[in-house]
Amino acid sequence: MEMHNFSSGPSILPPEVLQKASEAVLNFNNSGLSLIEISHRDPSFVEIMNSARNLALELLNLENKGYSALFLQGGASLEFVRVANNLLKVDGKAGYINTGNWANNAQNEAAYFGAVVEIASSKDKNYSYIPKNIVVPNNLDYLHITTNNTIYGTQFKDFPETDVPLVCDMSSDIFSRNLDFSKFDLIYACAQKNAGTSGINLIVVKDELLNKTRSIPNIMNYKKHIERESMYNTPSVFSVYVSYLTLKWLKDLGGIAAVDRRNLAKANLMYSEIDRNSLFYGTAAVEDRSTMNVTFFLKDEKLTTTFDELCLSEGIYGVKGHRTAGGYRASMYNALPMTSVQKLVEVMQRFETRFL
Amino acid sequence: MEMHNFSSGPSILPPEVLQKASEAVLNFNNSGLSLIEISHRDPSFVEIMNSARNLALELLNLENKGYSALFLQGGASLEFVRVANNLLKVDGKAGYINTGNWANNAQNEAAYFGAVVEIASSKDKNYSYIPKNIVVPNNLDYLHITTNNTIYGTQFKDFPETDVPLVCDMSSDIFSRNLDFSKFDLIYACAQKNAGTSGINLIVVKDELLNKTRSIPNIMNYKKHIERESMYNTPSVFSVYVSYLTLKWLKDLGGIAAVDRRNLAKANLMYSEIDRNSLFYGTAAVEDRSTMNVTFFLKDEKLTTTFDELCLSEGIYGVKGHRTAGGYRASMYNALPMTSVQKLVEVMQRFETRFL
Repeated sequence: MEMHNFSSGPSILPPEVLQKASEAVLNFNNSGLSLIEISHRDPSFVEIMNSARNLALELLNLENKGYSALFLQGGASLEFVRVANNLLKVDGKAGYINTGNWANNAQNEAAYFGAVVEIASSKDKNYSYIPKNIVVPNNLDYLHITTNNTIYGTQFKDFPETDVPLVCDMSSDIFSRNLDFSKFDLIYACAQKNAGTSGINLIVVKDELLNKTRSIPNIMNYKKHIERESMYNTPSVFSVYVSYLTLKWLKDLGGIAAVDRRNLAKANLMYSEIDRNSLFYGTAAVEDRSTMNVTFFLKDEKLTTTFDELCLSEGIYGVKGHRTAGGYRASMYNALPMTSVQKLVEVMQRFETRFL
Repeated sequence: MEMHNFSSGPSILPPEVLQKASEAVLNFNNSGLSLIEISHRDPSFVEIMNSARNLALELLNLENKGYSALFLQGGASLEFVRVANNLLKVDGKAGYINTGNWANNAQNEAAYFGAVVEIASSKDKNYSYIPKNIVVPNNLDYLHITTNNTIYGTQFKDFPETDVPLVCDMSSDIFSRNLDFSKFDLIYACAQKNAGTSGINLIVVKDELLNKTRSIPNIMNYKKHIERESMYNTPSVFSVYVSYLTLKWLKDLGGIAAVDRRNLAKANLMYSEIDRNSLFYGTAAVEDRSTMNVTFFLKDEKLTTTFDELCLSEGIYGVKGHRTAGGYRASMYNALPMTSVQKLVEVMQRFETRFL
């Protein structure tokens, strides 16, 4: 049966990436050795790491603009801590915009290291929208936002205007849409949505931002990791390779511009169906709807098991909503083909015919 | 050409582990989906995570003894910080034994969080031995040791007698030898030597040790990770699977007892040759020689290129010493077959015949 993978992360990867990753586990670069049993200092892997870092900057159009790219272990949850460690001054203050569970976690973890202020929040309506007309104080060490809210299906379309450094968790929409990435001073993202599989984070940071780092352990220090070219300690070798292959695939496809068009078309099809279909409804504010994670609900919850079984029987995987949000969520990352969205839409239509 | 992989880490894995890992990247459990693109909350992966954690405790003979096992991202270098975060009291003091570069790094990173005392050191002789007759103060929050020193080729055979919690970095010799692991209150190890590939750490900790954790971020908190069954945040899925396969392989082989015998035989053969061969010498104190990482040097450094080329031509990979130590290092982890050691010894003998 053909599978349609709507998983929210780890999530669908291009078939050619899976093929090459699988081969490398048996025999990397015709070395007679596996990728996962050679030294990370082997020139063949050092080249992969450097290429992956360069590809990230190239795709974001941030080459030669004073930015560095890192691939580090830990998950975005570790970057919550590292960001505060590197940017929050001992007597300083950081601003956070609370647009969901992850944004809130980022804020709570940072609060262990200094003063943290909630600048805006959409918690009042269960994170179903993105706060607008945000006034950002100019005495912040940085402003932190989560560009796309995986659980609730909302996404920043415009970004707060501010002179303070703009830091964003772009875990679930990096590389997915045309943006002027030079607006951001630090971008981080776990890899397992649009940038590979789990086990690493991409961090893209303006070098000049790191001159004020306070006294912190080496493993937390972005500057130290940049000096060591993302090899301060042993990287997650396999995950770096999958990111390299995924970014290479994206470049060959035509980069972010090409995928942006595809992603918009997929999102339009999916939202049109939710709006049209009499059995389902969406909760995210229309103007803030995410192109990556489409959340929707059954009007009649008693139909849940039947719809779940229909999805299962049609090879539709991973559409269950996050346990804190309920309902359904179709994650439509870069590698998800339009045909999978068409399939889900067709299944929803068939379901409507049956129960209307 | 048959390859002989002496890499110090990431390092050799059993062929059947590589085969299964490679297959899972294409099709996991006949799901039609790749292991690296399914949700980590998928029951099939949750089972892998739980099995890996249970296997670790079972192999160490620590089941039902009040210990928990975790697989977390970050590298052992992150555990340097997490250990201090969890165990070093605000007004407390931790003791460290400095037996090499990594031991020293562990100590330096902990010092960001409180008072740290060097209890013993072998730096005076370039870390070529393990300090003996160590007197451990009884007012420490914990004593930290590095059981095997990958760079210098030394290994603790006996452990300091102490009533304070004993914490050890067992990165390069966990699962390699018979020990009473219940001597230790917290064991951590990066996976890429005897427990899988890079991207995760195994942490085995006595639960009662964590009752005094100070206020620290969730991502640093072992207790939080135990509550969430090692899924507080998205794990490094592929690396966890490789660890699961590697530990399963070890269990099927007969566990630590079986591999201990094999490792001793490999080490004896290798050290006998270094002692016998007139062109080479070792520097590690004989009684402290590591069974995992055998360091050796050419008496005549001018022969370096020739020996390197001979190794290369014979498929011997990864015997270059660490950049800070120079010379050679044969890492002989669990998965390295005796035939690879025999090959290296044979090459050293042929080399001697040529240049004597």
